[in-house]
Amino acid sequence: MTLAETAQADQHNGGVMTFAADQPLKLDSGGRIDGLQVAYMTYGRLNADRSNAILVCHALSLDQYVASSHPLTGRRAWWRTLVGPGLPLDPDKHFIICSNVVGGCMGSTGPSSINPATGAPWGLAFPVITIADMVRAQAMLVDALGVKTLFAVVGGSMGGMQVLQWAADYPDRIFAAVCIAAAARHSAQNIAFHEVGRQAIMADPDWRGGDYAAQGVRPEKGLAVARMAAHITYLSEPALHRKFGRELQSDGLSWGFDADFQVESYLRHQGASFVDRFDANSYLYITRAMDYFDLAASRNGVLADVFRPARDVRFCVFSFTSDWLYPTVESRAIVRALNAAAARVSFVEIDSDKGHDAFLLEEPVLREALGGFMSSAAHSRGLDADASL
Amino acid sequence: MTLAETAQADQHNGGVMTFAADQPLKLDSGGRIDGLQVAYMTYGRLNADRSNAILVCHALSLDQYVASSHPLTGRRAWWRTLVGPGLPLDPDKHFIICSNVVGGCMGSTGPSSINPATGAPWGLAFPVITIADMVRAQAMLVDALGVKTLFAVVGGSMGGMQVLQWAADYPDRIFAAVCIAAAARHSAQNIAFHEVGRQAIMADPDWRGGDYAAQGVRPEKGLAVARMAAHITYLSEPALHRKFGRELQSDGLSWGFDADFQVESYLRHQGASFVDRFDANSYLYITRAMDYFDLAASRNGVLADVFRPARDVRFCVFSFTSDWLYPTVESRAIVRALNAAAARVSFVEIDSDKGHDAFLLEEPVLREALGGFMSSAAHSRGLDADASL
Repeated sequence: MTLAETAQADQHNGGVMTFAADQPLKLDSGGRIDGLQVAYMTYGRLNADRSNAILVCHALSLDQYVASSHPLTGRRAWWRTLVGPGLPLDPDKHFIICSNVVGGCMGSTGPSSINPATGAPWGLAFPVITIADMVRAQAMLVDALGVKTLFAVVGGSMGGMQVLQWAADYPDRIFAAVCIAAAARHSAQNIAFHEVGRQAIMADPDWRGGDYAAQGVRPEKGLAVARMAAHITYLSEPALHRKFGRELQSDGLSWGFDADFQVESYLRHQGASFVDRFDANSYLYITRAMDYFDLAASRNGVLADVFRPARDVRFCVFSFTSDWLYPTVESRAIVRALNAAAARVSFVEIDSDKGHDAFLLEEPVLREALGGFMSSAAHSRGLDADASL
Repeated sequence: MTLAETAQADQHNGGVMTFAADQPLKLDSGGRIDGLQVAYMTYGRLNADRSNAILVCHALSLDQYVASSHPLTGRRAWWRTLVGPGLPLDPDKHFIICSNVVGGCMGSTGPSSINPATGAPWGLAFPVITIADMVRAQAMLVDALGVKTLFAVVGGSMGGMQVLQWAADYPDRIFAAVCIAAAARHSAQNIAFHEVGRQAIMADPDWRGGDYAAQGVRPEKGLAVARMAAHITYLSEPALHRKFGRELQSDGLSWGFDADFQVESYLRHQGASFVDRFDANSYLYITRAMDYFDLAASRNGVLADVFRPARDVRFCVFSFTSDWLYPTVESRAIVRALNAAAARVSFVEIDSDKGHDAFLLEEPVLREALGGFMSSAAHSRGLDADASL
């Protein structure tokens, strides 16, 4: 590698893009964010005709570290099952972009950022954002990276919502779209679970009406409870039974309120470790954005009308049989609407007992089916000839 | 009604039974409770040969007011769909007993009772109790009421667990057993949801390590969050969708963290109203008892061995198709074990979209099937001739 190439590689590892005052992020709420910052990572290199860029959209509690270890926790890349050399999203072939959503807490502008008007963290003065706002910020980043049309936009869970929003708002800027374990709108049950999490955070006296950062405290207990409740919804009853059943931590019952059962200990760990890497107000804002998500709301509930301008996009939709957070029926509704819009769509329901989390776990059928879809799309895009870039 | 009858009727309306020092409640933990108090209600009158008594066992958050309004909230009787004149459990025919479980907070000895050793509320010094302990206390009450053999023991959810425990521990003292929407052991997912609730309570600084009563505060926010999380599990996604969908509270989005969606407002109300009638420590102890419940654990996991001595009991088992807390597969496991034990069992899976809460709601099939079962059992018991008692 020459020095120039090394420099380019370094530059492409990511960083924080700051947008100038004449490029505010316009929000669905009617507000705007000036001086928007978008933190991102990239992997691989953009080819000469800028046709090999893939945007990965992350889920609620994830971040831009789709293919590298987390800087705070040291945990391995969160989508190492699908992103990497020889995998469907391949930095040897693709220029992979992943940015922290607006409202997040890993470097993009969010409620823990400094409010220029006060010099203190925004807290609840931060405007409520939507999935469409997140996508608008991503489009600004993609512009700034010199990419006009993405080869693909790919995401699971809330990432899948963003993929659908891209198809709705920028159909001409995406060649392929992969929506995994998501829905075109958030269900009443999912809103209810989010509300429990928000109430747990807001019940913590260290939340301080959202002003905890300025006051030097953190609502860790409330955030941990929120994460515990959410975590149950990411798994399936069969997966919990297989992993833990009624297995005890030690030889006998404690006859008290310690973590007797392994599943209790596991949940407590999930809650405790989450607070080390996530901001409570970001949790409020991002869950709110998901609750507000209802892609067809502006089209009188007719999802096909949303997708009609995207009929040239190649869609691939995945669901998992044991996912009760975004069950297959939600993916089928997306597929039906795409069919009604005469769009191109592949649909794969994967038999798995791992629940919603299956999209992040080793699932050979997902890897193979996504690999096949990406290869086919690359062929249509004329990327095969580019394989040696 | 003669004066004597009025007196008996008053006496039979219930009250608090206090057991003498020579009648401690022996606990599964190895401990004991001296001076046990059991708060109870009765409806109807015991017949001459004491053969028409029915014990109703209540669920986690309920109480002895199965057929009368709640003294604190004024809410109507919680099982008014099944208990009442002309209904399957009929005070015109049966002597119906319902007692607050030990560990509860409606008059039976529990963590909010006074610890005679300290003169202050027990708090976490109260011993951990089990479903079998609850049933042992009920048996003492039934003894004290002069009933040797119950015509039936009936319960849903945690009440159903108690019914199964009665069959295991006192097979000769029950003629019929009705187990609705329950399981022979608590699943990993259910333990997980309970643990979230407990953590929410214990995260509330007003919980004070369980000593809140002595310190004059109450962990209301934590208990409300616990109730909200639990409440979601009592409903079904279709029921939530039918009741609320994505309907808003007012005309538009608030672009904030108020309760925008009706489902949020409903959940907040559920949490807020629960704290008016329930004690946080009782919630800890009763959820723990449910988590510890594993009826076959003492028989190497062979449930049929538990039920073999109960083969003369007439069992009726109910489940609901949309109950994901105690799904039909759990009831089937009970029925299979009863069959393997050559016991008499009827099983009815009821098609309902109301989720676990269906057992408390208007469900004509449940009422009719239970009515048929009770009539048949009454005939076998020779109660028909007694109809004019």
